[in-house]
Amino acid sequence: MSAAAKPLLVTAGDPAGIGPELCLGIADEAQKRPFIVITDAEMLRERAALLGLDVRVREVDISDAPEHGEREILVHHLPFAVSVACGKPDPANAAALIEGLRLAATACQDGTAGALVTAPLAKSVICDSGVPFSGHTEFLAELTGAALPVMLLAAGDLRVALASTHLPLREVPDFITSERLHAVLDVLHSDLRAKFAIDDPDIVVCGLNPHAGESGHLGHEDAEIIAPVVEACRAKGWRVRGPLPADTAFTPAAGKPDAVLAMYHDQGLPVIKYAGFGDAVNVTLGLPIIRTSVDHGTAFDIAGEGKADAGSLRAALALAAELAARQ
Amino acid sequence: MSAAAKPLLVTAGDPAGIGPELCLGIADEAQKRPFIVITDAEMLRERAALLGLDVRVREVDISDAPEHGEREILVHHLPFAVSVACGKPDPANAAALIEGLRLAATACQDGTAGALVTAPLAKSVICDSGVPFSGHTEFLAELTGAALPVMLLAAGDLRVALASTHLPLREVPDFITSERLHAVLDVLHSDLRAKFAIDDPDIVVCGLNPHAGESGHLGHEDAEIIAPVVEACRAKGWRVRGPLPADTAFTPAAGKPDAVLAMYHDQGLPVIKYAGFGDAVNVTLGLPIIRTSVDHGTAFDIAGEGKADAGSLRAALALAAELAARQ
Repeated sequence: MSAAAKPLLVTAGDPAGIGPELCLGIADEAQKRPFIVITDAEMLRERAALLGLDVRVREVDISDAPEHGEREILVHHLPFAVSVACGKPDPANAAALIEGLRLAATACQDGTAGALVTAPLAKSVICDSGVPFSGHTEFLAELTGAALPVMLLAAGDLRVALASTHLPLREVPDFITSERLHAVLDVLHSDLRAKFAIDDPDIVVCGLNPHAGESGHLGHEDAEIIAPVVEACRAKGWRVRGPLPADTAFTPAAGKPDAVLAMYHDQGLPVIKYAGFGDAVNVTLGLPIIRTSVDHGTAFDIAGEGKADAGSLRAALALAAELAARQ
Repeated sequence: MSAAAKPLLVTAGDPAGIGPELCLGIADEAQKRPFIVITDAEMLRERAALLGLDVRVREVDISDAPEHGEREILVHHLPFAVSVACGKPDPANAAALIEGLRLAATACQDGTAGALVTAPLAKSVICDSGVPFSGHTEFLAELTGAALPVMLLAAGDLRVALASTHLPLREVPDFITSERLHAVLDVLHSDLRAKFAIDDPDIVVCGLNPHAGESGHLGHEDAEIIAPVVEACRAKGWRVRGPLPADTAFTPAAGKPDAVLAMYHDQGLPVIKYAGFGDAVNVTLGLPIIRTSVDHGTAFDIAGEGKADAGSLRAALALAAELAARQ
């Protein structure tokens, strides 16, 4: 069975959030890109009924070759400990959520499944159950033995990777070391080749400071830390450019790089979320499996109201299918 | 004479840069929005000849009501000390450049002219002449007695103001004080009303940290410093919202605010430069005059080659005309 024909696995995320309805919302994708949802099948049926959706939920095993009927969602059933109302997350279900992630990631790693797509969880709900959990990405990295997961967001042709992610702004400058940048660029370059099938990727690296430091007038890190790393990459024959001012890196003046490496969260993500209009996809590089996810949270406040936009999950599934087909 | 009929003044910027050719490049705007360029008339004629442009340069006085012939640029002549080759700036001309700015700003302040549009200068060239100069904005603020100039970029309906501008990233967190945010919001709110004629402006304020601090997990400034300022503004009846995560502030989920206040340069400008595709306009709020400018630099490396895109100067002139007409 080729990777393209393997099922895509979608973890439905916290049942009190919008994850389950997003899964139901992409039922129309199923015949084009077969996928199996990992969640409690009964919960998903109830959610469909609550929302008045004409979608059948059929239980299958994760190792089944999925064949979808029309308006049908295939589910690998993982029973929850308690039933959950929309907007009211319950830590009692954390064990099942974690088990779902483990099952799905293992199936991707052992070749049973082609890729993993994750709908949102709330870290705090898992932690409240007593299981230490700092996020999908960290969990999957540890489970699969990956040294350095790197967050990349994709929206159309635009790809933005981050050299630092969830840090207070004041901790960013000291976090951006030469060692870290080398490691991040290694993962980015390697996975643009291996996962995105871009032979000789063109990467633009942003400066840390405004105007990339403007010759040291606006900070020294750009010239002292970032520039030498870029030079070292170029010396290996890689097409890496920078540091460029972040407000140039995304404009036509920067050409059309295959990826922009932003130094921190709010330097890169506002652009791609603006560009993606809610359909940006999060891809975790550096893992031995393909993993994409939505670019938003659980949205407990609107769960079960049928207002949630499935655009990002749809895009995450499409990109997962595309990347899986290239393996 | 109404403000709308008053001339718009355009300082052509450093003659070794792309400013002069941008002025020539917008000659077709002149009959629609009459403007007078402040520069050395002979230099401008030479530049037109160098580029093979069919544009006549006619000398007028700054206080003349401008009437443009077809393919004609009106110039208030300010002789340069030395003639300058493209790409080779000469500090000997700094005095004339400063005098041009002073003349233009004074004419706007005394009501002779409607607005000032500035093409790019290089700060270092002015400083090398012995005149301390930290930028157009600071110079104009001092000249007109403005306490706090605030940088706003506009591209279409998107407007981004900055609570800090040209600072190394590691200095940003301590720079964002409650006092400063109050002062910036006062200027922003007041000028959206006075200059943009938005009666009850809707302003979104970004957090300093990723996810606006995520309840303190990613930094404390959002809750401790920014949120109370937003609350105090709301208590005055202003429509100010936030702090919002910067990667939400520019998406449909944030509604369509009249302006987004970013906390620092690379949080706000990459988005608007991406959105504006080179046609973003810089507007200085907090001045007693209307001043717009291009969103790029002198580009000495391509000056005189006819490659420079006049889009931003065209947009800056159009916005200056629009704001002047509202006075």
